[in-house]
Amino acid sequence: MKILIVGAGGTLGRAVAAELGQRHEIIRAGRASGDVQVDLRDSKSIEAMYAKVGELDAVVCTAGKVPFAPLGELTEEKYLDGLNDKLLGQVRLVQAGMDKLRDEGSFTLITGILTEQPILAGACASMANGAVEAYARAAAIELPRGLRINVVSPTVLVESMEGYGPFFRGFEPVPAARAALAFSRSVEGLQTGQVYKIW
Amino acid sequence: MKILIVGAGGTLGRAVAAELGQRHEIIRAGRASGDVQVDLRDSKSIEAMYAKVGELDAVVCTAGKVPFAPLGELTEEKYLDGLNDKLLGQVRLVQAGMDKLRDEGSFTLITGILTEQPILAGACASMANGAVEAYARAAAIELPRGLRINVVSPTVLVESMEGYGPFFRGFEPVPAARAALAFSRSVEGLQTGQVYKIW
Repeated sequence: MKILIVGAGGTLGRAVAAELGQRHEIIRAGRASGDVQVDLRDSKSIEAMYAKVGELDAVVCTAGKVPFAPLGELTEEKYLDGLNDKLLGQVRLVQAGMDKLRDEGSFTLITGILTEQPILAGACASMANGAVEAYARAAAIELPRGLRINVVSPTVLVESMEGYGPFFRGFEPVPAARAALAFSRSVEGLQTGQVYKIW
Repeated sequence: MKILIVGAGGTLGRAVAAELGQRHEIIRAGRASGDVQVDLRDSKSIEAMYAKVGELDAVVCTAGKVPFAPLGELTEEKYLDGLNDKLLGQVRLVQAGMDKLRDEGSFTLITGILTEQPILAGACASMANGAVEAYARAAAIELPRGLRINVVSPTVLVESMEGYGPFFRGFEPVPAARAALAFSRSVEGLQTGQVYKIW
C-alpha cells in the first residue's frame, strides 16, 4: 500500500511510520518537515498536498493541536483555534481526500483519552476529540467505493511524559509503538467507524 | 428554582417548560419568541440575555441548529455553521453563564442520538453532538462553586416524526415529555458530567 502519514515527524507519527513502513510505501507529511509539507488549517494546502502525492491507499493523521487552558480562561478564540486545527484539519483531510483514495482505501484519524476522561485545562481538547470521533462514525456509513474511516484514541504516551506528565498524573502511559499498532489495525484491517482506545 | 430555558418555543423546549414549570419559575428564551430573545451564535446577545434575566439556578438549552447534507456536499462553510450554532452556541451559554448561576446551579445541554448512531446526511450533527458531550464531561470537573453540567441526548421525538421521519426510518421515537424528564433529572438531581440517553 501507499500510505500518507500526516504528522509523521511527531512522536506518534514516527512510531506509525516505523510500524507501517515495514510492509508499505510511506509518504511523510508535516508542517515543516517530511516528504511534503501541509498546514491542516488551510484547505488549499491540503489540496496541494494531495495533488503532489498522487493516488493513495491510506491516509493516516497523527497531527492536530489544541490550546490547553483552565475552563474559565478558554476564550472563543481559543476554542476556534482548537476546532480549526485538530477537528477541522482532520475533517478537511477526509473531505478533500475521499476522491483521492483508491477503492477500499482508508482514513485513520487521531483523538485521545480526553474524549472520555477529562483533565484540568483540557476542555478544548475533549471537545475536539469528541467531535472527531462522532464525525468518523458518521462518515463511515457514507463514504463511497468501500472507503473506510477509523479513529485511534491513545492515552498519554510514555515518550511524552516528560512534557505532559504533570497533566496526566495517575494515567498509565503507553509506548508510542503500542498506539502505532492500532493504526496498523485500522489501515490493514477491514473495520470502519471504529474508535480504537489504547488505554 | 429560577430556570432559564433557551429554545423554550420549540417542541422539546415546551415539554421541558411544562415539566419544570410545575415546580419552578421558568424564563423562556428564544430567537424570536419567549420572555427574552437570544441568538446563540452571538456572544454579545448571550451576555445581554444574562444581564436581563439576573441570577439563575439553572440554564437549560433545547436549541441548536445544524445543516443536514450528504457527506460529499458538506462544505467547510456548512461545518462551521453547525459548529457555530449547536456546539459553540451552547459552549457560549456555559462560558458566559458560569458567573451568573447561583452556587450549585446547573447547565443542561442538548445533543441527540446521532452522536453514536449516525444517519445519512447527519455528519455535521454527529460532529457537533460529540463535541458538546465531550465538552460537558470536561467542563463538569472544572466548574466552580458546585456548579454542574449534564447533557440530554434524545432520539427522534414522536412530535417531530412528520418532518424528520424519513431521516429516521426504523428508529423508535420518544415523546417529548419523556425526553423532558431527563432535563428534570439533570436540573433537580445532583449528578454532573452525565449524558442522559433517551433511546
